Amino acid sequence: MSTAWNSRYALRTLRAKGSTIRELLKVTQRPEVISFAGGLPAPEVFPVKRFEEACRGVLERHGRQALQYGPTEGYEPLREMIARNISRYGIVAETENVLVTSGSQQALDLIGKLLINSGDRVLVEAPTYLGALQAFSIYGAQFISVPVDDNGMCTGELEASLRMSPKFMYILPNFQNPAGVTLSEERRRQLIFRADKYGIPIVEDDPYGQLRYEGEHIAPLVVLDYKTLSSHDGLPPANVIYLSTFSKTLAPGIRLAWVVAPSDVIGKLALLKQAADLQTSTFNQMVAYETAKDGFLDQHVKLIRQVYRERRDAMLEALEEFFPPEVTWTHPSGGLFLWITMPRDIDCRLLFRAALAENVAFVPGDCFYANDVFEGCRHMRLNFSFSQPEQIHEGIRRLSMAVKMQLRRAAHPALEIVEQ
Amino acid sequence: MSTAWNSRYALRTLRAKGSTIRELLKVTQRPEVISFAGGLPAPEVFPVKRFEEACRGVLERHGRQALQYGPTEGYEPLREMIARNISRYGIVAETENVLVTSGSQQALDLIGKLLINSGDRVLVEAPTYLGALQAFSIYGAQFISVPVDDNGMCTGELEASLRMSPKFMYILPNFQNPAGVTLSEERRRQLIFRADKYGIPIVEDDPYGQLRYEGEHIAPLVVLDYKTLSSHDGLPPANVIYLSTFSKTLAPGIRLAWVVAPSDVIGKLALLKQAADLQTSTFNQMVAYETAKDGFLDQHVKLIRQVYRERRDAMLEALEEFFPPEVTWTHPSGGLFLWITMPRDIDCRLLFRAALAENVAFVPGDCFYANDVFEGCRHMRLNFSFSQPEQIHEGIRRLSMAVKMQLRRAAHPALEIVEQ
Repeated sequence: MSTAWNSRYALRTLRAKGSTIRELLKVTQRPEVISFAGGLPAPEVFPVKRFEEACRGVLERHGRQALQYGPTEGYEPLREMIARNISRYGIVAETENVLVTSGSQQALDLIGKLLINSGDRVLVEAPTYLGALQAFSIYGAQFISVPVDDNGMCTGELEASLRMSPKFMYILPNFQNPAGVTLSEERRRQLIFRADKYGIPIVEDDPYGQLRYEGEHIAPLVVLDYKTLSSHDGLPPANVIYLSTFSKTLAPGIRLAWVVAPSDVIGKLALLKQAADLQTSTFNQMVAYETAKDGFLDQHVKLIRQVYRERRDAMLEALEEFFPPEVTWTHPSGGLFLWITMPRDIDCRLLFRAALAENVAFVPGDCFYANDVFEGCRHMRLNFSFSQPEQIHEGIRRLSMAVKMQLRRAAHPALEIVEQ
Repeated sequence: MSTAWNSRYALRTLRAKGSTIRELLKVTQRPEVISFAGGLPAPEVFPVKRFEEACRGVLERHGRQALQYGPTEGYEPLREMIARNISRYGIVAETENVLVTSGSQQALDLIGKLLINSGDRVLVEAPTYLGALQAFSIYGAQFISVPVDDNGMCTGELEASLRMSPKFMYILPNFQNPAGVTLSEERRRQLIFRADKYGIPIVEDDPYGQLRYEGEHIAPLVVLDYKTLSSHDGLPPANVIYLSTFSKTLAPGIRLAWVVAPSDVIGKLALLKQAADLQTSTFNQMVAYETAKDGFLDQHVKLIRQVYRERRDAMLEALEEFFPPEVTWTHPSGGLFLWITMPRDIDCRLLFRAALAENVAFVPGDCFYANDVFEGCRHMRLNFSFSQPEQIHEGIRRLSMAVKMQLRRAAHPALEIVEQ
């Protein structure tokens, strides 16, 4: 039918893979399913009223500006606000160091476009954020994976990988998606030290940094980079591009995130963004500014922390209550996700089907691995932000049934035949 | 300073060129300048009140959905509405044939990503839309240009170019940006016939199609493609991907456009979009749907037509009144732009500076040419949608002063020295 087109696809189109998650989400949207699969924020805490006021305010006072084209780099007051907000974490940024993007996914796409020639190596954690693997793969990235444990990326195993000259490292230091683990301060320092030693820059993705439920804030890599390294001209060194987003603190449906980088890098990214979508919605940027301003965002983040902490605790308690001792899991001190490790002989892709029969869903771990998909199969990612505590309790109970059944089957393979 | 990054840029980054226009716009934003440079819709006709009601309606009734993640392909009711609206023009499309994009620029980027391997040829009009040249260049496109005249692309000159096997043709048939000309029905048929003969598919970009101020609607290429060509399986042939947008009928600040294509092409584009920005803002899509529904969009387009027709007429009259006989211009029957042709020895890049001294701005034509930049230098693009009729009259008067001075200088090169 449309062979006029599909015989003409570019090589990169043949590389593009769908997100298993987005496919799974379609299956798991039946109302009877308790889903731990998506990475969805809790819609109950969206500041709907405040948004409504913001929309009215923006349209009444600046309607014509809000609906018109605007600058590629972003709405100036929003860029200033972002620069101001992140300075509290020690990040040194002026307005010109901030590029507003259409969600963090666009930031990842633009970074892939900026840096990756087909065949270039990119160092990632194993597991890592699926969306980054998708974005970078399209540009022909080859991945080098470094495993994570409870303290984040195993920096002790970094040297061999850095000797393979990756173009850059992509790191999620806080409450990582999918594993929920946090890179310890000591490892952050090791990472910066080695990055400097081998001259390999870092893309630091920090969507969840503000959603910490316990423990102390740890300085982001971009700040440790200034502090650790000396600079010739008195300016901070600039080996880290820092990404964050409003998706987890305000709402994902407005698609607003940002890149912090040296101004010449921002200039190049803005050029690429201009060709990619001209600019991010003027209206959304103005509404987000109006929503976030006067301290509202900080207050709102406190509420989110409280709600998500409860849900994380509900999930940890239910796991203790229902899950068998052969299974282990991470104890995230923030973020949206928790990571389950099954015994070696369990394939979570099969477990997914068994779980769905019990009306509960998760994401099998294989899709978060760039290289060792087999290792990934023994993991599950569970989201705890979306479901209410009672649902979490019931969902983990259901999931434990499927888990125990898979464990029995693995112990007695003959059962498989009998039960079929 | 940030050599960590700029020594690592990908080849495509080195290809990325900024839009002269976006740079010019910065210069021309002084309040005393009358600017015909941008491609901006008239902000006075933005339906601000209706947007405000739509925002309130969406947030009150569906706030949690509007602020949450949504499907990559787009908000289902909006996709249905788009399919329904375009069926009036004979375009055969179901919901599954429609992909919502973050503005038409994203559609162009995704099409470049989908189809262009570095070195592939793309056939374009000369002049053509600058944003398409930017989007396709990044993927390494080589351009083949076919000139346009008052009846659009010169299809008589097409054969030689098609024999060079372009991967696809990129065509703006209605009130083309920048020239304002429209491809005649006879030439559309010739184009479809030759596209079929050489097996070269077409990307039809139609942002202005609804903004016709006189004359009869001409069937889009995608419709002529069904009618002209036979199909084996009873389905319409699918050699045309059709693009349009809400930027010129509702507002550009919400960044909403769409691609119409066979469902397998839409599937691939959605994969690429997922990696590029996950999805277009759920909120904006729901607000646009709410704004456009119940016949509002049609009514509103009538108002825009009336306002822009007046402005076009004001510009044409002022040109007749003030411009010298050596200068010619197009008479667009729709759209936002008009195209001036100067005598061969005038360089409109120099004229731009002279005009700015008179506090009036336009875009020199060279940036709309993929190949023959020299030819482009004798043209100017004038936008007539943004300025009010009195401003247009005054702006054209000012511009005529600069034009006459340049003509005098060209006739008497010695003047240049005297005047300096």
